[in-house]
Amino acid sequence: METLLYSIEVTAVLVFAYSGLVNARRAGFDMVGVLTIGIVTAFGGGTIRDVLLGNHPLYWITHWEFLVFIMLLLPVELLLLRMNRDISGGRVLMIIDALGLGLFTASGVGIALAMNTPYLPAAFIGVITATFGGVIRDILCNQKPQLFLPTEPLYATCAFGGAWIYIGLIGLGIAPAAAIFACIASVFILRIIAVRFDVKLKI
Amino acid sequence: METLLYSIEVTAVLVFAYSGLVNARRAGFDMVGVLTIGIVTAFGGGTIRDVLLGNHPLYWITHWEFLVFIMLLLPVELLLLRMNRDISGGRVLMIIDALGLGLFTASGVGIALAMNTPYLPAAFIGVITATFGGVIRDILCNQKPQLFLPTEPLYATCAFGGAWIYIGLIGLGIAPAAAIFACIASVFILRIIAVRFDVKLKI
Amino acid sequence: METLLYSIEVTAVLVFAYSGLVNARRAGFDMVGVLTIGIVTAFGGGTIRDVLLGNHPLYWITHWEFLVFIMLLLPVELLLLRMNRDISGGRVLMIIDALGLGLFTASGVGIALAMNTPYLPAAFIGVITATFGGVIRDILCNQKPQLFLPTEPLYATCAFGGAWIYIGLIGLGIAPAAAIFACIASVFILRIIAVRFDVKLKI
Repeated sequence: METLLYSIEVTAVLVFAYSGLVNARRAGFDMVGVLTIGIVTAFGGGTIRDVLLGNHPLYWITHWEFLVFIMLLLPVELLLLRMNRDISGGRVLMIIDALGLGLFTASGVGIALAMNTPYLPAAFIGVITATFGGVIRDILCNQKPQLFLPTEPLYATCAFGGAWIYIGLIGLGIAPAAAIFACIASVFILRIIAVRFDVKLKI
Repeated sequence: METLLYSIEVTAVLVFAYSGLVNARRAGFDMVGVLTIGIVTAFGGGTIRDVLLGNHPLYWITHWEFLVFIMLLLPVELLLLRMNRDISGGRVLMIIDALGLGLFTASGVGIALAMNTPYLPAAFIGVITATFGGVIRDILCNQKPQLFLPTEPLYATCAFGGAWIYIGLIGLGIAPAAAIFACIASVFILRIIAVRFDVKLKI
Repeated sequence: METLLYSIEVTAVLVFAYSGLVNARRAGFDMVGVLTIGIVTAFGGGTIRDVLLGNHPLYWITHWEFLVFIMLLLPVELLLLRMNRDISGGRVLMIIDALGLGLFTASGVGIALAMNTPYLPAAFIGVITATFGGVIRDILCNQKPQLFLPTEPLYATCAFGGAWIYIGLIGLGIAPAAAIFACIASVFILRIIAVRFDVKLKI
């Protein structure tokens, strides 16, 4: 189980990093920019979570092997782009991203609850963990955050829903491992449904 | 007295949130964007204050009822906008915003002093608390921060003036409650004068 | 030795502040904007370093005389600009900036190592300390970060190289003072070479 979660986490970090790399390339940045934005997209959400909660040392300081993975990913991605194959629109990436969304939500809520955060801010911290890496990515690329635009199917909303599933199950006295699993699964399913049926939040 | 301060604080948080909601709507964001930017505008300044000072847990984690108030405000604001009535330019909002400016300045300086911050950085933290919610709001909307543009009457400057009144009175041995009150009053009066006589800081 | 390092540090803070002041003036900001962006450019990198590491109180809270220096610099800079003399393109500023780049890299790596950060994240924190003040400056001015654009000679890369020299020498058991000096010198020399021969990181 732990190996599985770790594998999903590494994959999710890499998928988030990949979306940063692609965006930074489109913005015309150089290698420093591409690498920085890749790293920031992958770790930004978790870093904001830990800074808001006062949870030190940060996880990419302890698990610095994640930084190595992203640095190894960079040449692969550049090769793919040079071969004119942008795989960021594909279904596989979308599925891994949805898994990552769920996983980061669960990690945000879990760490917030472990630090005695009340339920409502814990749910918000779950959403922030899962989505603010992308927000910082867009700000660094001088764009309006994709997360806030009505052109995209539900994203933060799926994380918010899953966060409450986590909290609800914990409140009912369910074992944490089950609550984590239910959270990841529900975020994943909500996101897949949102993309499949193009559910959007217009005002 | 405490009830009065709490009422002003809640009102100020809601006014700041409202300015975020209106800006986010103008930027064409969806419900997630509007709600996020409302929350960030209201809590951004205080969050930066607490993160800079290492003051945990953050106040919106302890006082999470503020998050509820903002979520309740959202449908009201959307209704108002749909009825084509933007009240953000009105005199009432300006007055509450000026009160909020004073209150957040006082809270920033007060908490900074309580954590043994020297006078000058404490004054800066007061100004940051009162104004950086709006700066983050503008960055998330991909605009130049309003706070820095010469088209607006004095804003941060009023907060800076009031911060020194607070610090000066504390330095003279005046009771903290009186210093807080004088700070809020002077920021409020400075801001009202700046708006009334259109005082600007050109270079 | 300590007086020398302190003098370089003050000079570097002022040079970084100056680049913020000039950028803010070009963006059309008022006095509040110009002063804020000057301060943020100078202290942004070190502040992010301390917030990421949980290192409180922040250094500009302890060393608040730096804030005074920047406030004294503002009228001088405005006078220079009014006399139509922008010295930001000059060779002297470039040399002091290169020294500052080295000094901030060394301070970032040094503090990170002192807080038991593993080598790789310590190197990244060195680079962040030296370069993210400028990134925040550009974001506040609503521009793409200069740091990420392929039009500039190597900058972050020089800091990254110097960070590893520091870490390598510490790993070899060299005295910290020698490692700090070698780090500053190598960043400085790398940067001067990059500017002299216009070395860029295209992709």
